Amino acid sequence: MSPADLLDHYRSRCCSPQWQGFVRALCEELEQGLDEADRARLMARLGGRFAAAHPLPEAATLQALQDAANAVWSALDWGRVEFEEQPDCVLVRHCASPLAAAGGTGRPWLAAYLEGVYRAWFHAAGGAPVLDVVCTQADAGHVDSYVLCRVT
Amino acid sequence: MSPADLLDHYRSRCCSPQWQGFVRALCEELEQGLDEADRARLMARLGGRFAAAHPLPEAATLQALQDAANAVWSALDWGRVEFEEQPDCVLVRHCASPLAAAGGTGRPWLAAYLEGVYRAWFHAAGGAPVLDVVCTQADAGHVDSYVLCRVT
Amino acid sequence: MSPADLLDHYRSRCCSPQWQGFVRALCEELEQGLDEADRARLMARLGGRFAAAHPLPEAATLQALQDAANAVWSALDWGRVEFEEQPDCVLVRHCASPLAAAGGTGRPWLAAYLEGVYRAWFHAAGGAPVLDVVCTQADAGHVDSYVLCRVT
Amino acid sequence: MSPADLLDHYRSRCCSPQWQGFVRALCEELEQGLDEADRARLMARLGGRFAAAHPLPEAATLQALQDAANAVWSALDWGRVEFEEQPDCVLVRHCASPLAAAGGTGRPWLAAYLEGVYRAWFHAAGGAPVLDVVCTQADAGHVDSYVLCRVT
Repeated sequence: MSPADLLDHYRSRCCSPQWQGFVRALCEELEQGLDEADRARLMARLGGRFAAAHPLPEAATLQALQDAANAVWSALDWGRVEFEEQPDCVLVRHCASPLAAAGGTGRPWLAAYLEGVYRAWFHAAGGAPVLDVVCTQADAGHVDSYVLCRVT
Repeated sequence: MSPADLLDHYRSRCCSPQWQGFVRALCEELEQGLDEADRARLMARLGGRFAAAHPLPEAATLQALQDAANAVWSALDWGRVEFEEQPDCVLVRHCASPLAAAGGTGRPWLAAYLEGVYRAWFHAAGGAPVLDVVCTQADAGHVDSYVLCRVT
Repeated sequence: MSPADLLDHYRSRCCSPQWQGFVRALCEELEQGLDEADRARLMARLGGRFAAAHPLPEAATLQALQDAANAVWSALDWGRVEFEEQPDCVLVRHCASPLAAAGGTGRPWLAAYLEGVYRAWFHAAGGAPVLDVVCTQADAGHVDSYVLCRVT
Repeated sequence: MSPADLLDHYRSRCCSPQWQGFVRALCEELEQGLDEADRARLMARLGGRFAAAHPLPEAATLQALQDAANAVWSALDWGRVEFEEQPDCVLVRHCASPLAAAGGTGRPWLAAYLEGVYRAWFHAAGGAPVLDVVCTQADAGHVDSYVLCRVT
C-alpha cells in the first residue's frame, strides 16, 4: 500500500457517496449539451452563487481571508485552500475538492466552480476590479491551482 | 418538540452538508436560465443517466424490484421507495429524497430527477413502451409521488 | 408511508454507518461486563469528557446557552436540544441523538452520556453546586429528557 | 501543499465528525481506568463482536476473503485491507482506519480492535486453531499491520 494507493483511497471517499452519481450524471449531460468554454462559464456562475450564499467575514490580511475561507470549507468537508502572496499576484491552491474527485480525470472545466467562488470572495474582500482569478491548473495531484492577478 | 419539529430536523440533515450549497446554486442558476418545463426535462435526463449508471439486477416481482431499488438508495443514503400495484397502474412513493431536501420548498420540478430514474429502471425491467412514469405530487410531506401507467 | 415510517427511516440514518457497528459492539460488551448503574456512570463520565473538550462560550441567558449547545450539536450532526425554564427547574429535551439511534431500544443507560454533557455544561455556565442534571426519560419518541434541578 | 499535508488533511476527515469527540472521550476514559494490556484486550473483544455481527460470505481463496472484507469496509467507509500470503504466514495491512484517525497518535492499543475483527473473520473462514492474528505495527503511515501465523 504505497502513499499513492493511500491517496487514491482517500480521494475515492472524499466526495459524499450520496452525490457522486448525481454529479457524474450532471457532468455527462453538460458534456453532451455544452462546449467546454460554456461548461466552464456555467461552473463559474455556480461558484459565484455559492460564494454569495456563503459570504466571508471581513479579513484584514490575506492569512485571515484564507482562514475564513477554510472555516467554510472545513464545515462542509470541501477540502482546504492556501493563499500565497507573490510580488505581482496571489497563488491559490485548493486541495481535496470533492467536485474534482466526483468528476474524475479529464474534466478540467470543473475547476471553474472554485474559480467562480474565489473570484466572488476576492471581489467582496475589496479586490480591485482589474484583478481577476484564473485557473492555471486543474486537478493536478488532488489540487486545483488559480492565480489572482491583474487582467491585461 | 413536536413530531413535525422532529421531521423538520431530520429533513434538514438528510442532504449531505457537502452538497447543499452546490445544489442550491444549481437550482437558482437553472431557474434563471430555463423555464420550468425545460428544468424538469433536464432533471429527468439526469435521472435517466443515474439509472443507466446504477442498473438494477433482474427482479421477478414488483416487490423484488422495489427491494433492488432500495438497495441502491440505502447504500447512497438517498431515502426509500415503495411500489404499490393498482388495477391499472403502479404507485411509486419516494420519501426522504436529499435532492428535495436540498432544494427546499417551491421547486416541484426537482421531482423530475427521480421520475427519470424510475422511468429508466421500469423500462429496463421490461415495462411495455406504452407505459410511462409521471410525477403526480412533488415533495408533499417529504414524499415525491409518481405513477407508472399507460400513456394515452 | 406514514409519518411513523418516515421517522423510523430518518432515525435509521441519523447515526453515521461508520460507527454503528462499533457502538453496538461497545453496548453489548458493557452490558456483559457492567451492571446498569455502572454503565450509566461510565456514559456520564464520557459525556463529561466530551463537554470539557467542547466548552461553550459564555452565555448571558438560558436561550443563549441553548443556542451555543446547538451550535456544537449542529456542527457534529448530533441532534438538537431545547431548554425550557420552569419555576423550580430547567427541562432539557434532546432529540435525534445518534447514540440513542445506534444503541436501539432497551438501553436507557445510554442517555447518561448526554446527562454527563449537560451536567458539565451547566456547571461551567455557573450553575450552583446544589443543582444537578438528571435523566427523566430515555429515548422516548426520539427524545432524551433531563431536568436541571436542586439536588435534595 | 505537499503529499504529506494532503495525507494529513484526508486523515483529519476520515473519521466522521459525529463520533470523533465520543471516541476521544472513550480513549481518555480507558487510559485512566485500564492498563494498556487491558485496553487492548477490550478493543479486541469489541472487534470480535463487530466481526460476529458482520460475518463474511464463504470465500474460496485469500483474495476472495480480502474482497469480502473490503466490501464490508467500503460500505462503512472504514478504510481498506490487503492480505498478502507469505511462506509461513499472512500479512494483513489495513489502511485509513477511522478509529486510528480519531484516536490520534500514541495509542497503539487501538489497533487491537481490527486485530479482534480479523482474528474472528479468519477463524470463521476455517483457520486452524493454532493460527492467530497479532498486531505487528500500529498506525504507521496510516496503516495498521497484522500477521496471521502459527502461535508458538
